[in-house]
Order: sequence, then C-alpha cells, then structure tokens
Amino acid sequence: MVADVAGEDTRAGQIAIALLHYPVYDKNRRVVATAITNLDVHDIARLARTYGLARYYVVTPLAEQRALAGKIASHWQSGHGADYNPKRKAALDLVTVYSTLSEAVTDMETSFGMPVRLVATGAKASKGAISYADMAREIARGEASYLLLLGTGWGLTDEVTSGAHFTLAPIVGRGEYNHLSVRSAAAIIVDRLFGEL
Amino acid sequence: MVADVAGEDTRAGQIAIALLHYPVYDKNRRVVATAITNLDVHDIARLARTYGLARYYVVTPLAEQRALAGKIASHWQSGHGADYNPKRKAALDLVTVYSTLSEAVTDMETSFGMPVRLVATGAKASKGAISYADMAREIARGEASYLLLLGTGWGLTDEVTSGAHFTLAPIVGRGEYNHLSVRSAAAIIVDRLFGEL
Repeated sequence: MVADVAGEDTRAGQIAIALLHYPVYDKNRRVVATAITNLDVHDIARLARTYGLARYYVVTPLAEQRALAGKIASHWQSGHGADYNPKRKAALDLVTVYSTLSEAVTDMETSFGMPVRLVATGAKASKGAISYADMAREIARGEASYLLLLGTGWGLTDEVTSGAHFTLAPIVGRGEYNHLSVRSAAAIIVDRLFGEL
Repeated sequence: MVADVAGEDTRAGQIAIALLHYPVYDKNRRVVATAITNLDVHDIARLARTYGLARYYVVTPLAEQRALAGKIASHWQSGHGADYNPKRKAALDLVTVYSTLSEAVTDMETSFGMPVRLVATGAKASKGAISYADMAREIARGEASYLLLLGTGWGLTDEVTSGAHFTLAPIVGRGEYNHLSVRSAAAIIVDRLFGEL
C-alpha cells in the first residue's frame, strides 16, 4: 500500500496505538467510561506486534478495570499462558495500562525522546481529515512519534478529536452502513498506514 | 485501494465470507472443530455489512454450536436487541449458519446463479498465492461468485486450501511476527479487496 514511503528504520519504535475507554460517547452521546473487553486487548496487541508498533496503551480511569487489563496481559506474559502460547506473550508485552491519555503521551515522549503527535480516528467524516496516504507520508518524515487514538463505545469525544494533531479519514465501505468494531477498525487503519501488499 | 476496478454493480451480491470452525488445525496441527466465539460472529458480520458483502456463513458441524450461533444472531435480529441497536440487526441479518462448507457453496450457487470460486486465506506463504490486486481484478470480471474462506484455530487445513480456486497471499506486517486474530485478518483482507481509500 502506501507503506513503502516509510522505511523500516525511519519509523522504528515511533508509532503506538491507544485504546481509550474514557472519554468516549455512549449511544446517546453521553460521555462515559466503557468496560475493558478481553478481545480488544488481545486483538490489538497482536495487530500492534505484527505491524511493529512500539506500544499498545490501554487507557481507563477505573482502577479495577486497569487491574483487569493487567491481569489479562500478565496471564500470557508469565506462567501457564506464556508456556502455552509464547506468541501471545510477545504481543501482550506491548500492552501498557494508564489512567489517562496524557500519561500515555508522557510515556511515549520519555521513551522515544521526540514530540508526540496525536492521530484521532473515528467513523464520521470531519473537515480537514487527512488521507491514509498523506498520514503515512507524514509519519515517514520521522520528525515525531505518532500515537493513534481509538475510541471504544460510540467513539472518541469531540474534545479528544479536536485536541489531536490529525484526524484520519473515516473508513468507507460500500453504501451507507459504517459500523465496524473497534477491533476491525484498528486492523484496517494500521494495515492502511503500515501494511505491505 | 484497488476497489475501483470493481464497479459497485458488477460485484453486487456476489461476494461472501465463510468462517470455518471445522476442518481447522489446532496448535499441534491436529484437525479439530473449534468453538464459536461471540465476537467472531459480530465483528465479521459488521465488516461484511460495511463492505457490502452478500452473506456471512458460519460453518460448524456441531449442532449445539450452530444453535449458539443462531441464538447470537437472533438476539439482535428480533426483540430487545433489534430495538436497542438496529444497526447490529442489519449486520447480523447476513449471518447464515451451516454444517459444512459445501452447504454454503450450494446456497451461494442457488442464490446468485453463478459458479462459486473459493478463495482460501492463511498466515503462511504458499506457492501460487494470488496478490490482493490480482484477486480484486479477478473478482471485478464478474464471471463468478467468490467465497472468502477464513479458518479459526490455527487455520484452514491443507485439504481445504488445496481445494480452493485461489489462495490469497498472507498478510505481512513488519518483521517475523505474523499472528493476527481471525477478526483482524478478516478486516484487513476485506479492506484490501474492497476498500476505498
């Protein structure tokens, strides 16, 4: 796809993905904290590992939910799970759990020593959205780290989106229907930005 | 992406996706029947609806598992689920449950009146695999219906793959790691074949 513009070395270790459980909308556009879903942790960790991303941040302000995410990851990182499926361990090693997005940003800045640019995603068209090809070119310039933001529930709040440096164009299929799971959307977005046909 | 070569009308109603729970490999390469996963049903149904596919076949020889798949779908097709989230109903209306792949093929032939060509997918490189661009062009010729085959567990058996008309190239990320969930792989494959950037 457009990945060839980004050299393997240029962007190594500079891309991460964050799954926000707060602040996001519910179906009535109220701002809520959603519950962690086991397969969100697994699927996106495996995706991140396959495409060479540096981190997968799971963000929730709820302490019990953070403990749950940690438990899901650690089951595969040590003990029986790690023995049963070492491939899963390699993926879940990317998972880092934080209370807030800004903690994740600080972690990225500290880890990679570059400014972090936030890339919002969502199902709705927005003015000034950037195409996948342009975003891949921007990333390939290697002047910053990039954090892809995914919302659970009914998506990232307008506040999060407007605070991001970029908003990716929505994924358009055929016709009006556009209701992918966050797991599917994550896979398509990462493949469009970093996949090689 | 390559979708423009396929006109909306040319391929309308001629593409379907099948998730096989048998025959597939387990981690020790034994042929097994896997259990149905709730989110496999949902995620791939929403994906199929978003990209305008005609059917989503869930294939398992186990009667109790077929009943479970039917229950998952019908929860959202009628009653409370349909009221709560009509969008989910539109997706799950695509779900059709069969015991065997050949039943799904017969359903496609009957429904669309064209020969059905099977397109195997998998994580391993195989000789004679077709690229996404070539597969999209093949589909765009409109001379057949196409059924994308996805395996659960550790993937489709060699027998299924060698019986297919085409085998798609594996999804390659960065580096050696290549262990996507079947949900993520489905999303990437369908987007590569039918997505529009």
